[in-house]
Amino acid sequence: MAIKWEIVCKQDRARAGRLLTARGIVETPAFMPVGTQATVKAMTPEELQEIGVGMLLSNTYHLYLRPGTEIISRAGGLHAFMHWTGPILTDSGGFQVFSLGPLRKVSEKGITFRSHLDGTTHFFSPEKAVEVQEALGSDIIMPLDHVVPYPASYAETKEAMERSVRWAIRSRERQRRIMEQALFGIVQGGVYGELREQCCRDMTAFDFPGYAIGGLSVGEPKEIMYNILEIVTPLLPEYKPRYLMGVGSADALLEGVLRGMDLFDCVLPTRIARNGRVMVRWGYLTLRNAKYAADLRPIDPHCRCYVCRHYSRAYIRHLLKAGEILGIRLTTYHNIYFLISFMAEIRHAIRERKLDTLVHAFRSQFGQEEEIDDNGDESGAELKCTAKD
Amino acid sequence: MAIKWEIVCKQDRARAGRLLTARGIVETPAFMPVGTQATVKAMTPEELQEIGVGMLLSNTYHLYLRPGTEIISRAGGLHAFMHWTGPILTDSGGFQVFSLGPLRKVSEKGITFRSHLDGTTHFFSPEKAVEVQEALGSDIIMPLDHVVPYPASYAETKEAMERSVRWAIRSRERQRRIMEQALFGIVQGGVYGELREQCCRDMTAFDFPGYAIGGLSVGEPKEIMYNILEIVTPLLPEYKPRYLMGVGSADALLEGVLRGMDLFDCVLPTRIARNGRVMVRWGYLTLRNAKYAADLRPIDPHCRCYVCRHYSRAYIRHLLKAGEILGIRLTTYHNIYFLISFMAEIRHAIRERKLDTLVHAFRSQFGQEEEIDDNGDESGAELKCTAKD
Repeated sequence: MAIKWEIVCKQDRARAGRLLTARGIVETPAFMPVGTQATVKAMTPEELQEIGVGMLLSNTYHLYLRPGTEIISRAGGLHAFMHWTGPILTDSGGFQVFSLGPLRKVSEKGITFRSHLDGTTHFFSPEKAVEVQEALGSDIIMPLDHVVPYPASYAETKEAMERSVRWAIRSRERQRRIMEQALFGIVQGGVYGELREQCCRDMTAFDFPGYAIGGLSVGEPKEIMYNILEIVTPLLPEYKPRYLMGVGSADALLEGVLRGMDLFDCVLPTRIARNGRVMVRWGYLTLRNAKYAADLRPIDPHCRCYVCRHYSRAYIRHLLKAGEILGIRLTTYHNIYFLISFMAEIRHAIRERKLDTLVHAFRSQFGQEEEIDDNGDESGAELKCTAKD
Repeated sequence: MAIKWEIVCKQDRARAGRLLTARGIVETPAFMPVGTQATVKAMTPEELQEIGVGMLLSNTYHLYLRPGTEIISRAGGLHAFMHWTGPILTDSGGFQVFSLGPLRKVSEKGITFRSHLDGTTHFFSPEKAVEVQEALGSDIIMPLDHVVPYPASYAETKEAMERSVRWAIRSRERQRRIMEQALFGIVQGGVYGELREQCCRDMTAFDFPGYAIGGLSVGEPKEIMYNILEIVTPLLPEYKPRYLMGVGSADALLEGVLRGMDLFDCVLPTRIARNGRVMVRWGYLTLRNAKYAADLRPIDPHCRCYVCRHYSRAYIRHLLKAGEILGIRLTTYHNIYFLISFMAEIRHAIRERKLDTLVHAFRSQFGQEEEIDDNGDESGAELKCTAKD
């Protein structure tokens, strides 16, 4: 098999485990930074290693469109192309086709869509998505799925979920590099518990090496997401890794772990970093705010990361205001470090059976001093690196 | 004294030397990367150290306007603020006031100008420029000078040069931190040999610890610059370092060294990196060009830098086209490495008395394969880091 996952220790539903891949071991629960376009934005692979990142996520849709599968394949695969030696999980492109493609047409055969880059027309079938991911050479691959927006009707969600199951089976039949790549099943079904249950039953019948929970963290209230996890977890096999797609805030990561999730990915830490927002144990800081102009403290005085050991909030704010790339490098580095070290703490707590203590401490601290003066950030507008010499 | 400079070896007019500062030794001839806004664009101090950068240049004008002198002073000076432990040379701001300030008025007292950031009015006198640089705590400081554009008339150039001499003397009188900061004299006089001679005589009478050659590399043909250096060098004291301001192309660095120059700075390597252009021994490559889309070779197969050891032209081109910050990080790293290692080669050649061999090899190679299909770069437009996840 391409991967092996084993439980090291359990506390209630939370599991500390080890994911063994040909490219290294990933301790779980694990957060995977996102390298959408074959780079985790603003970071080198060495920096990710230094931080302790185990596995990256990259995007089939983006890489297929640019630079194209052929050059990546000729380079020896995605790992060689981007100079990352650890394991990589690739998303199938389903989510991106539905969120980015301006025009798309779904049939049982697959999805016809237009490139968000140049408007050209493309067709993805489940088979094609597997082929592209085989050319990329990622370690864990995802089947093409039919993603519905939030909110979506029961009927629409049911139809898309059932199609996703059929597509997952077709993906599996098409898969050739069984010994090198693990194809996960994706549980869909939106916010409808009944559909989630049906999907779990249908998917687990095919004994995938791991299960992703898709279609969550797409705008629904967090409580709904947590409820769906409560429904899904008992229906998934105990000894397979569970991957909650698109989750990357500290609170949701912890709640996910408490509900038996093992893998997570999200653009949140890197995206908000480019807006000048950083993660701390008590919430978020928007470093562009004027109140940090003369603040010579590090982002978090208790953080041991490279950024917090060497730079002040005032300096990083200066860089961000001046449009300097280093500003974004530093906020990105800190945010990834924050999540990676938070996951390490969680794993440690599970092994020590002290998860309750961690949960209590986290909940009493997180959000207590959250900022209220960061309205400027709501637009999600990214800082432009336009500083000139 | 704040600095000490000694000649290690000479070959004709070229000198291999050592600049001793309180913050470390800089082997000369040396190229100083520019950290305009308290950061060498896209780089960390650790990366600069890894490359072998000895000394940085930063800009009084920019730092005075943003983030302001007070916060830098409170942080413990520019070194602490930006986390760079090596020596720093600060420019006085004269060049920036004349090149960036939309409205300015020069009197014998100083320069009134408007900020290019917010239009506010400011006044710089020679005394003020020294005060600001004392607050920044740089190791080598420059006197405010009256810079004229190229071309400028003899009369205008003469007036500005003579004023710059008077201002240099006022700067010296105002200087307080004599033991911590070396104030260089700046030789002005434009393209007029007679004025350059007069300026050398006037400035050297005051025995500055080093001499900068200003007002060159501002658009004049390179031959004119080289001719001025031929005139100036014999009139400057042998045992003081000579700093050719604003030069950073490999050919001009070499020609400067051959004419007795010891220090250089320029935004060229970092600025063109943000346009996707990289320096190689045979000229420049514009990596955004389509011809690199499937080119799996490193930038320079003979280069030993981090970038050339791990990344292909095709990958870097992909990053640049996709607006990824890592693309600019990699081109910037390579370009600085290229110039720093080129200067190390030059120093080695001087010590081995093999400068002729190096000059011959360089001239026979440089520009021979220069690209002709990079018109897209002429605008100087910088790539925007706008990639979204």
